Amino acid sequence: MGQQFDLLKARLNEISDVNHATAVLGWEQETYMPSGAAKSRSEQLGTLSKISHEMFVAQATLKLLKAAAAEQDTMKNAKKAAIVNIAQQDYDRAHKLPSEFVAEMARVNSQATHAWIDARRQSKFELFAPWLKKNFDLARRAADYFGYQDHIYDALLDQYEPGMKSAEVTNIFADLRDQTVPLVKAIVAHKDRVSDDCLHGQFDKQVQEDLAKKVATQLGYDFNRGRMDYTAHPFCTHFSIDDVRITTRTDETMFNTMFFSVMHEVGHALYEQGVSHDYERTPTGTGCSLGLHESQSRMWENLVCRSRESWVHFYPQLCEALPVFKQTPFDTFYKAINKVEPSLIRVEADEVTYNLHIMVRFEMEMAMLEGKLKIKDVPEAWNAKYQDYLGLTPENDAVGCLQDVHWSGGLIGYFPTYTLGNLISVQMFERIKKDIPDLTEQFKRGEFSQLLAWLRKHLHQHGRRYAPTDLIKRATGKALTAKPYIAYLKSKFGDIYGLGG
Amino acid sequence: MGQQFDLLKARLNEISDVNHATAVLGWEQETYMPSGAAKSRSEQLGTLSKISHEMFVAQATLKLLKAAAAEQDTMKNAKKAAIVNIAQQDYDRAHKLPSEFVAEMARVNSQATHAWIDARRQSKFELFAPWLKKNFDLARRAADYFGYQDHIYDALLDQYEPGMKSAEVTNIFADLRDQTVPLVKAIVAHKDRVSDDCLHGQFDKQVQEDLAKKVATQLGYDFNRGRMDYTAHPFCTHFSIDDVRITTRTDETMFNTMFFSVMHEVGHALYEQGVSHDYERTPTGTGCSLGLHESQSRMWENLVCRSRESWVHFYPQLCEALPVFKQTPFDTFYKAINKVEPSLIRVEADEVTYNLHIMVRFEMEMAMLEGKLKIKDVPEAWNAKYQDYLGLTPENDAVGCLQDVHWSGGLIGYFPTYTLGNLISVQMFERIKKDIPDLTEQFKRGEFSQLLAWLRKHLHQHGRRYAPTDLIKRATGKALTAKPYIAYLKSKFGDIYGLGG
Repeated sequence: MGQQFDLLKARLNEISDVNHATAVLGWEQETYMPSGAAKSRSEQLGTLSKISHEMFVAQATLKLLKAAAAEQDTMKNAKKAAIVNIAQQDYDRAHKLPSEFVAEMARVNSQATHAWIDARRQSKFELFAPWLKKNFDLARRAADYFGYQDHIYDALLDQYEPGMKSAEVTNIFADLRDQTVPLVKAIVAHKDRVSDDCLHGQFDKQVQEDLAKKVATQLGYDFNRGRMDYTAHPFCTHFSIDDVRITTRTDETMFNTMFFSVMHEVGHALYEQGVSHDYERTPTGTGCSLGLHESQSRMWENLVCRSRESWVHFYPQLCEALPVFKQTPFDTFYKAINKVEPSLIRVEADEVTYNLHIMVRFEMEMAMLEGKLKIKDVPEAWNAKYQDYLGLTPENDAVGCLQDVHWSGGLIGYFPTYTLGNLISVQMFERIKKDIPDLTEQFKRGEFSQLLAWLRKHLHQHGRRYAPTDLIKRATGKALTAKPYIAYLKSKFGDIYGLGG
Repeated sequence: MGQQFDLLKARLNEISDVNHATAVLGWEQETYMPSGAAKSRSEQLGTLSKISHEMFVAQATLKLLKAAAAEQDTMKNAKKAAIVNIAQQDYDRAHKLPSEFVAEMARVNSQATHAWIDARRQSKFELFAPWLKKNFDLARRAADYFGYQDHIYDALLDQYEPGMKSAEVTNIFADLRDQTVPLVKAIVAHKDRVSDDCLHGQFDKQVQEDLAKKVATQLGYDFNRGRMDYTAHPFCTHFSIDDVRITTRTDETMFNTMFFSVMHEVGHALYEQGVSHDYERTPTGTGCSLGLHESQSRMWENLVCRSRESWVHFYPQLCEALPVFKQTPFDTFYKAINKVEPSLIRVEADEVTYNLHIMVRFEMEMAMLEGKLKIKDVPEAWNAKYQDYLGLTPENDAVGCLQDVHWSGGLIGYFPTYTLGNLISVQMFERIKKDIPDLTEQFKRGEFSQLLAWLRKHLHQHGRRYAPTDLIKRATGKALTAKPYIAYLKSKFGDIYGLGG
């Protein structure tokens, strides 16, 4: 009984081991690898990816999948069924793209990324334009291979947020935009009410690191099953449920750079560290979707670590580590870390304006895929939207339409998941506050374990067992809307900026 | 033309990539991996090893080997031929051991290592004895699978030093022992002539690290194609000719611990960094044998970095980094780093006594394999030999026959390569001094590039192209003997200890 399942699992385990080994090499490339090793490392990464892909798409895998699915006892066991089903789902997806097409994509994406680096450095969109066209052409072809019912965008979005439709995103984003744009205007009209001067200064790197690690530990990140290193761009990666790494970067003159990036990555890491060991070394054993993943990073970064209540607990620790803050009143600090300011750069945006950056990208992707926006007109369209939503026009393309790596790497349909994550985080948090009425009171005492336990129970442990849309409903009680997020913004920032109402 | 060779090479490249990925995971396990990841990492290492092994021993590999060997143009090209031949040699060896036997060895060795750790901690040989018996039984069976002509030991030694015979080792060692034992006695009689007090003190870790890296760079180690990290036991590993890592450990109270271990590993690393890129990603693209590898680590550690001439250059740097040495006369320091003292622990032994430690192990391995020494009598035999050769008796087995990891890991036939390395290093160095008459004068000026260039030309670049015994003859002009090493010891230490003529 379960013999076929065991055979399938053994195969999935080995594939997972190769994927995790690939992740180790990728992490090491960003953290410690000497520059001279770039070529050999990329060859190694290529070989491991190829081996993993070949092992997974092999006929032998399909045979085992079918045999395991035919085992009644296996499929009656919900966790085993989740392993078989997710593997089958991935198998089906992997087989939709012909291998020559995958190779072509990899090649073109890689060349496009090099062109993008060059174009951004020179701030010349025209150097990137032909590659952007190629990447959108490839995305269109990929969408055709994947298939879709209503909109070509759905096929692409489905890679990152399975089951989510562009029509739903359009609706949700419309609500959000309608409420956010006036809110931003109201805040800008009172921008003198909040200053972040106290966050600029001289903050020793080691002191910042020690503090960030201390806070991360208090939130529940397990350093025995993870570690933190420095990279140019912070990220979270995992090589096992028991080996979930985060990275950060430092700016000795600005407090936010390290602290909040660490808490963001800790949010991702808590998700991966919380997946049930029953799914270890299988495709089910990781976060469910990009949106749900981002909901966790944003919950810990913003709803926990940018809350007034948490700083009741953390502020004394901060003042001890960096005594200069003793001169800053608590309220000044709390407002400073929540300062809202329309800006050109997405990754530096605050909670209120962040989603406007995403909408620009989503709307432009839709327009390009629909053929309504020509590649050559991208900078103009970008700048017009920034003026429209944020009241700013980039002085050049480097800080405008060339700022993000995504399009150069072929990640089209990816951006909405950032905003979906924000929305999910608040909708879920509202539900948690109903289940744990004194939740934010607990934060004042440095107690985050009930929050983590809730997330573990309702989200983390399940890995990819449930479809994202189902999981959102299970964990928040309803389908996703922008309403909780809008209410949250109005309440929190209305308070901070004294907007009345 | 060369089409079959290209196909073979592509396969060898992928296998090499997997092996190097395995090495990255192994290195990371020792350097940065959090403790909780131990289980998952060992599964990943197991899977990668299995995949690499399966790819290599596959029928498809044999077909490609035969097809490439049948290509006249390929085999006329000496470097291509070296790739085909070494791969064939490894293939033949890999096929000599049945896969169930390999799995049994891996399992028993792993259990034996755990038993050894426990036995050493408790200093109870009897806890390890049954496992040592199992490992020697397995070694005997492996030797039978490999086959041998004269002595069972030859089959085991051949894994580490291909082509070397135990009879030759016995002869060389006899000479060495006959000359070393009286030399040690003479030195001990004048032990008050050298003190290493100046090497004990308080030496800041970062200062030691900076100095070691500076010296390593001056010797020629390329940090753009390598890096140095901390581990419990220093080692050198490589993931490419362009990615050769070293590790070290530190003792803030004893200067030698880090400095000379770094120079030792740098010697290994210079070898790997110097292999021709024509052999990159093939089995030919690494050092030729353990003895030749050790000859490089010992040459840079001892013949370069423990020489009076090199310290003429380095001593001012040392005094600048650690000003306490300004109080130590140059000659006192030079003698201190060359202090000879019979001791119980191999890894701490000096140039004179080191080989006596190896002889004890080699003679006991021979006796055990010949059935002349019973496992239960190992401690007694060990202690008797230590008394005989070094004038010391271990107070317990932890510092006696349980001190080394090798036998627990199944590395039987490995020890002689350490001494062979020492002997090769001096025999080669004598030859180099003939080719570069002012070699050691160059050291005084901090010039090590001619030495490195010589090694690159005569040894490093060739990787595994030549058989070790051939390469020793090519690089030193004659077959290996103990004579140059004995002469070196007598001259150097006769001088340091003032032993006269």
